[in-house]
Amino acid sequence: MEENVSGQGKISFEPPRGMRDFYPADMAWRSRVFDAFRAAGEAAGFEQYDACVVENYELLARKAGEEVGEQLYHFYDKSERHIALRAEMTPTLARMVAQRQKERSMPLKWTTIAQCFRYERMTKDRKREHYQWNLDIIGEDGILAEVEVLSAACDALSRMGLSDGDYKVRVSSRKFLGELLERSGIAPDRHAQVFLALDKRGKMPDQEIAAMLREGGLSESEIAATFAIMETKDFSASPELTELFRLAEVAGIADRLVFDIGVIRGLSYYTGIVFECFDTKGEFRAIFGGGRYDTLLTTIGGEPTSAVGLGFGDVVVTELLKARLGEDAASEPRGIAVGFMTEGERDAALRLATALRAKGSSVDLSLRPQKPKKFFSHAEKTRAAKAVFLGPDDLAAGKARMKDMLSRTEEEISL
Amino acid sequence: MEENVSGQGKISFEPPRGMRDFYPADMAWRSRVFDAFRAAGEAAGFEQYDACVVENYELLARKAGEEVGEQLYHFYDKSERHIALRAEMTPTLARMVAQRQKERSMPLKWTTIAQCFRYERMTKDRKREHYQWNLDIIGEDGILAEVEVLSAACDALSRMGLSDGDYKVRVSSRKFLGELLERSGIAPDRHAQVFLALDKRGKMPDQEIAAMLREGGLSESEIAATFAIMETKDFSASPELTELFRLAEVAGIADRLVFDIGVIRGLSYYTGIVFECFDTKGEFRAIFGGGRYDTLLTTIGGEPTSAVGLGFGDVVVTELLKARLGEDAASEPRGIAVGFMTEGERDAALRLATALRAKGSSVDLSLRPQKPKKFFSHAEKTRAAKAVFLGPDDLAAGKARMKDMLSRTEEEISL
Repeated sequence: MEENVSGQGKISFEPPRGMRDFYPADMAWRSRVFDAFRAAGEAAGFEQYDACVVENYELLARKAGEEVGEQLYHFYDKSERHIALRAEMTPTLARMVAQRQKERSMPLKWTTIAQCFRYERMTKDRKREHYQWNLDIIGEDGILAEVEVLSAACDALSRMGLSDGDYKVRVSSRKFLGELLERSGIAPDRHAQVFLALDKRGKMPDQEIAAMLREGGLSESEIAATFAIMETKDFSASPELTELFRLAEVAGIADRLVFDIGVIRGLSYYTGIVFECFDTKGEFRAIFGGGRYDTLLTTIGGEPTSAVGLGFGDVVVTELLKARLGEDAASEPRGIAVGFMTEGERDAALRLATALRAKGSSVDLSLRPQKPKKFFSHAEKTRAAKAVFLGPDDLAAGKARMKDMLSRTEEEISL
Repeated sequence: MEENVSGQGKISFEPPRGMRDFYPADMAWRSRVFDAFRAAGEAAGFEQYDACVVENYELLARKAGEEVGEQLYHFYDKSERHIALRAEMTPTLARMVAQRQKERSMPLKWTTIAQCFRYERMTKDRKREHYQWNLDIIGEDGILAEVEVLSAACDALSRMGLSDGDYKVRVSSRKFLGELLERSGIAPDRHAQVFLALDKRGKMPDQEIAAMLREGGLSESEIAATFAIMETKDFSASPELTELFRLAEVAGIADRLVFDIGVIRGLSYYTGIVFECFDTKGEFRAIFGGGRYDTLLTTIGGEPTSAVGLGFGDVVVTELLKARLGEDAASEPRGIAVGFMTEGERDAALRLATALRAKGSSVDLSLRPQKPKKFFSHAEKTRAAKAVFLGPDDLAAGKARMKDMLSRTEEEISL
């Protein structure tokens, strides 16, 4: 249907390629996910912030590195300013923190739900825009920061309706992995390349990973040692992982965490704990990911600071929720439908709707006289929890019946 | 500070020109306004929808007409698709409704909070992006639709904290004005130009309005008649205005409505009732505006339908709220701050925070040991409503004191 445009005739009714429309049923899912993000952030004491989706190109290109720069939607405004749609929130966060770094008392605990754009090849669950919940704790070295971020993410999943057994958070430490590599004679200046290669594990055969390591200058014995390290199950030599798992026990989320030395995270800026969450059945891509990074501000010219961050997209978790809870689970019956039979009951219907709303109810008032059959069919279609239909007799009697659409029971209300 | 970029050195920390950053204090205001939008839409039975801020250029240019087309932020994606950032939601709404017009039962009652972009000259309260709350009822001719939209808008203002006396909604009817013009011998095919001229009243001297009317082909007596019409105070000859004010009485909003023949609304697509809301003191631009329009779908090739719509921006109302309620009114004290004196109380503090969160509280947990003075100063700065500080003695006793930061009273809690 795209580009089906001819003069002043019909125009395409589709959104631009890669962009999503949210019809009410889609929006019900999005609200469920966003409400959980906001409530979990609030419960954990994070402050909300936001910025415009349009950013300075220079800022995004500087931070992005690697392939992200190429995937930016960028353009010039009418004053030839080079601007772009952000691909992630972190550069903007860095800019905003740097701008007021001196006047704020650290640590900052900030959260946002940011729309992000990336021009890339599309697959079923990878569009060109998505929303990403961001949690960041800036200016705190202690491992309690990681635990707070992970607790909030687990809390969000619970609020959405998932059970603790539905997902696992795989946790590792780049620092620990670095120490293991160093013990095998691989010096720190070669670690970035090793991380890059190891991040591809599971996505490409080990032979190709080995080739990448070879290109990175590792000897055959170093390559063998690297693969052996990837079998590590015991993290007791890492004080930070030990402490993280202990605190997770106190916070009541340890049952959902598992050590996995194979968690690397693609981006080069992570420096400590890294984590990724997957559904237990292994049917979907990562639900969320994040870790500790400390170059947030220095890349753009701010003061050095340590930070822990989490990115949690809306697409994968919504697919997971639909699979586990059912496609319609977000559109639960709610509110009261109010209808009327003849013009004579219109004022009474409006008065009733106004009164019910004043008491806190959501009321969908019919705007014209209807036959009862049509009204109740509409009330069912729009998933009203209750329905009141006013006819001339009700008005004469000064009372009406409110029907519970699920139980089919009725209660009498006074008009 | 802009464009202060040099190699890998410092980068500008400012947002792109015309775009807004929302630091936590700004975000508190935005949340207050958005929460009221959502709650009022929900109470009135509107369904939420949304679409991507990136739209097909062709769709926006077709609908925009007039000067809006020139003000579009538009560009080409990597596949040479002509795309743009929307300037208003209506074209997108039209596209989405047209796409599914046959499968949905009318009327639709849809709402969204949409970010919109317009490249224009900036003033203090006019940036290049803003959020606009949209309410639309599509497929209903009856005047009750207008009343429902107006009630929801008034409800939103109440929820934000304004009193009924803080604002007035000026209401008129293009149909009524058209009839008055016709009765003075000005034929309907000249009305669009008359509306365009009259819309400038208050913004330019009457002499210039008269010149515009003269250019539009009106005779001197027709111009005099037009100005005389603008003094109309009696709307009893208009059945739709009469009915609207009567129903507004039933809905309890009549005290905030006032007839004003001078309300025209700039956009050419309005066909019936039009309205604009202003603060009573007259200090700000319009708070919201809207009316009935029936060319929504036909301009893009859909089936004809009648609709009532409202656009309510976030900028003016936030300025008004700050002026009436005070700059800090949105950052009310809330949540519980939990801190601890030594490493020995860290686990207990985390356990307490976890328990308080499980009971529904928002808890800001300190991430490292602190001196009590520093902790309470931080709790005050972050506007915590309550604060608990754990020391070694508390742990030994198995209880602690929770301080109310406002009343300075304390209650004992068990650990």
